[in-house]
Amino acid sequence: MSPVATRGPVRIVGTGLLGSSVGLALRALGVDVILADPSRTALAIARDMGAGRLPSDDDGPVALVVVAAPPDVVADVVAHELSAHPGAVVTDVASVKTSVRDALAEAGADLERYVGSHPMAGRERSGPTAARGQLFAARPWVIVDSGRSSDEALLAVRSLAVDLGAVPVTMDAEGHDGAVALVSHLPQVAASLVAARLAGAQDEALALAGQGLRDTTRIAASDAALWAGILAANAAPVRELLVGLREDLDRAIDALDAGSVAGLARTIEAGNQGVGRIPGKHGGAPRAFEVVTVLVPDTPGELARLLVEIGEAGVNVEDLLLEHSPGQPVGLASISVLPGRTGQLTDVLAARGWRVAGEEQHA
Amino acid sequence: MSPVATRGPVRIVGTGLLGSSVGLALRALGVDVILADPSRTALAIARDMGAGRLPSDDDGPVALVVVAAPPDVVADVVAHELSAHPGAVVTDVASVKTSVRDALAEAGADLERYVGSHPMAGRERSGPTAARGQLFAARPWVIVDSGRSSDEALLAVRSLAVDLGAVPVTMDAEGHDGAVALVSHLPQVAASLVAARLAGAQDEALALAGQGLRDTTRIAASDAALWAGILAANAAPVRELLVGLREDLDRAIDALDAGSVAGLARTIEAGNQGVGRIPGKHGGAPRAFEVVTVLVPDTPGELARLLVEIGEAGVNVEDLLLEHSPGQPVGLASISVLPGRTGQLTDVLAARGWRVAGEEQHA
Repeated sequence: MSPVATRGPVRIVGTGLLGSSVGLALRALGVDVILADPSRTALAIARDMGAGRLPSDDDGPVALVVVAAPPDVVADVVAHELSAHPGAVVTDVASVKTSVRDALAEAGADLERYVGSHPMAGRERSGPTAARGQLFAARPWVIVDSGRSSDEALLAVRSLAVDLGAVPVTMDAEGHDGAVALVSHLPQVAASLVAARLAGAQDEALALAGQGLRDTTRIAASDAALWAGILAANAAPVRELLVGLREDLDRAIDALDAGSVAGLARTIEAGNQGVGRIPGKHGGAPRAFEVVTVLVPDTPGELARLLVEIGEAGVNVEDLLLEHSPGQPVGLASISVLPGRTGQLTDVLAARGWRVAGEEQHA
Repeated sequence: MSPVATRGPVRIVGTGLLGSSVGLALRALGVDVILADPSRTALAIARDMGAGRLPSDDDGPVALVVVAAPPDVVADVVAHELSAHPGAVVTDVASVKTSVRDALAEAGADLERYVGSHPMAGRERSGPTAARGQLFAARPWVIVDSGRSSDEALLAVRSLAVDLGAVPVTMDAEGHDGAVALVSHLPQVAASLVAARLAGAQDEALALAGQGLRDTTRIAASDAALWAGILAANAAPVRELLVGLREDLDRAIDALDAGSVAGLARTIEAGNQGVGRIPGKHGGAPRAFEVVTVLVPDTPGELARLLVEIGEAGVNVEDLLLEHSPGQPVGLASISVLPGRTGQLTDVLAARGWRVAGEEQHA
C-alpha cells in the first residue's frame, strides 16, 4: 500500500453512493472524514456504515470538500462550500462538467480552489447502502481544471483519485462532456431506443433473443430519473451525436427502400470502422482476439472447472462471456484468447471432454 | 445419446460454415452425407474435414436435401433440388424465410416437400474450416412450414434439428422474419449506427469507453456483405422497426431541445419496459439477478480461482462478465447471482481476500 497523499479533514457533502464510497475509502486509509447531507436518514446510514463522522464544534478548517450532490444542485452547493470554507479545495463528482463550471463562473465563485471530478464508477445501484470503499478501484477518474484551478487544488484532487485506487485522467470541461456524450450518453440513448421497440413484441419473437440483443440493450435497464438529468445537463453534445445518428439512420432506411445492398453494406462497414477504434484491454491498442465457444453444463463448478483446465493448458483468458441457451440447461462460454491460440485450446478442451461449439475471429 | 431419427442419404448443397457443420454432425451420428458445392475448393475441404463424401454413380435416391447456399441464390437452388430429387424433402438454412418461400411458390415448386429452416447458430466466422459438428447444440432452430409442407417433410426437418442438438421452434415465415428483424436485424443496425459515430472520435475520448459502449457496439464488428444481404432480404419488417426507432429518436432530440427532463425520462423508461421483456436464462421468465463485482488480477488462473471459490461457497454463477480496466492490470468480474445471495457471496469473497468492488441489481 503506497502512502496516503490526501490531507484531512475531508468534508463530504451528499452521502449517496458516490459520497459514501469516497468516505469509506478515505476512512480505510485513516483520513478524518466529516459527513453532511440534507437527509438525516442518509447521513445516519453513511455514518453507521463507517463513511465518516458528524461535524463537531471544535473542528478545525477542512482541507478538501467533495460535493456529491444531485446534478441540478451541484453548482449551488459547490459555490456555498467555496465561500463557507475559504481555505479548502472543493471538487464535485457530477458526470457533466461544463454546466457546473459555467454556473460557478457566473456566480463569481473562487475558481482557483475548485476542480471538477468525474469518477467513472459504473452502474451501481444508488444510496449509501450501496457504497463500497473499492468502488473507484481501477476506474478512470476524470480531473477537470476550472480554467483557473491552482496547482495545489489540482494536486489535491489528483491525490484523492490516486488514494482511492482510481486512474486519474486530465481533460478540460468541454472535452470531458463531449467524450462522455460519445462513450456513455449516446450508447445509453441508443440502447433505450432499441429496447423500447421490444415493448409490444410477441413472446415467441423474444424467445429467439440471443446475445446480440442482450448486449445491445443491457444498459437500457438504467435509472430513468438519473439519466434524464444527465442528458439534460449535456444536451448540446448529446444532441449533435443524435442528429448525426439520425442522418445515418435515414440513409439506412433509404437504402432499404431502394433495395440497395451496397448502401446497406456502407452502414455496416461504417460500424466496423468505428468499433475498431475502441481501445483494447487495459487501454491498449485494439487487438483482434480469437474466440473459442464451449458448451458448459449449468451446474455449480462447471465453469470454474473449464477455466481451471484452460489455465492448466497455459492459455490466458483475455475475455469471457457466458451466453444463455433458451430451453436447455447448458450455457455457451465464449473465451477470448490471443490470436493463434485457438487451435491449441480447442485440442486441449476436446481432449478433456469439453464440447467445443465453434471458433471465431473478433474485432 | 438418443437414437438417430434422420434418414440418409442426406445431400448438402453448399459446404460453407453451416452446410459443413450439418455434415460433420450427421457423419458423427453415422448418417450417410453427400456433399455438393460449385466451389471445388470448398467441397474438397469439407470432404477432407469429414463433413461427408462426394456423389458416386451408384448412389440411390437421397431422403433429405439441405440447401446452405448464399441468400441471393437459395430459392433457385431449392427449386432445382426439388425437381432433381422428386422423392426428397428439401430444406434451406437461410436467415430470412418469406422471400424464399414466395419465390418457390412463384416458380411453381413442390411446396409439399419443402420446409424452411433457420438454425440460429450465432456469429461464427465463415467457410468450411470454421465448421463444427456442435455448432447447433443448444441453439434455437426455427422450422417454417411452406404453407403446404407435408407432415412427413416437417417431421424430417424437425428430426434433423433434434439430431443436431438444436431446440426446434415452429413459426410461420412472416412470424419468423418479423421476429429476427426485432431480435437480430434491428440490434445489428443500431450497433452499427452507434459505432459509426466513433470513427472520428479523439483517442482521449475513446479511452473513457466502458462496458456499456463495448456491449452496445460489439456486434458492429459483423461481416458487412453478409449483413447487407440479410437486411435487403428482410427489408419490410426491418424498415418498419427503423421508422419506429426514428420517431422515438426525434422525440428524444425534441426533448433535448426543449430541455424537457420529463421527456428524456420517458425515453429511458420506455427502454426499461422493453428490456424487461427479454426472457431470462434458458428461456424462462425475466428475473432480476443481483451482481457482485470483484477485482481480478490479470494473471492466468485468477479468474478460475475466483470461480472455484464461489463454487465452494455453494453459490451458482448465473452470468459472468469480465470488464477491462483502462490503464491497470486488473479486471472487474461482474458475477450475477440469484437475489438474496450477494451478501453471503460478498462475505465469503472478502474472507478469502478478494476485493469486492460493489453490488448491484440487474434487470
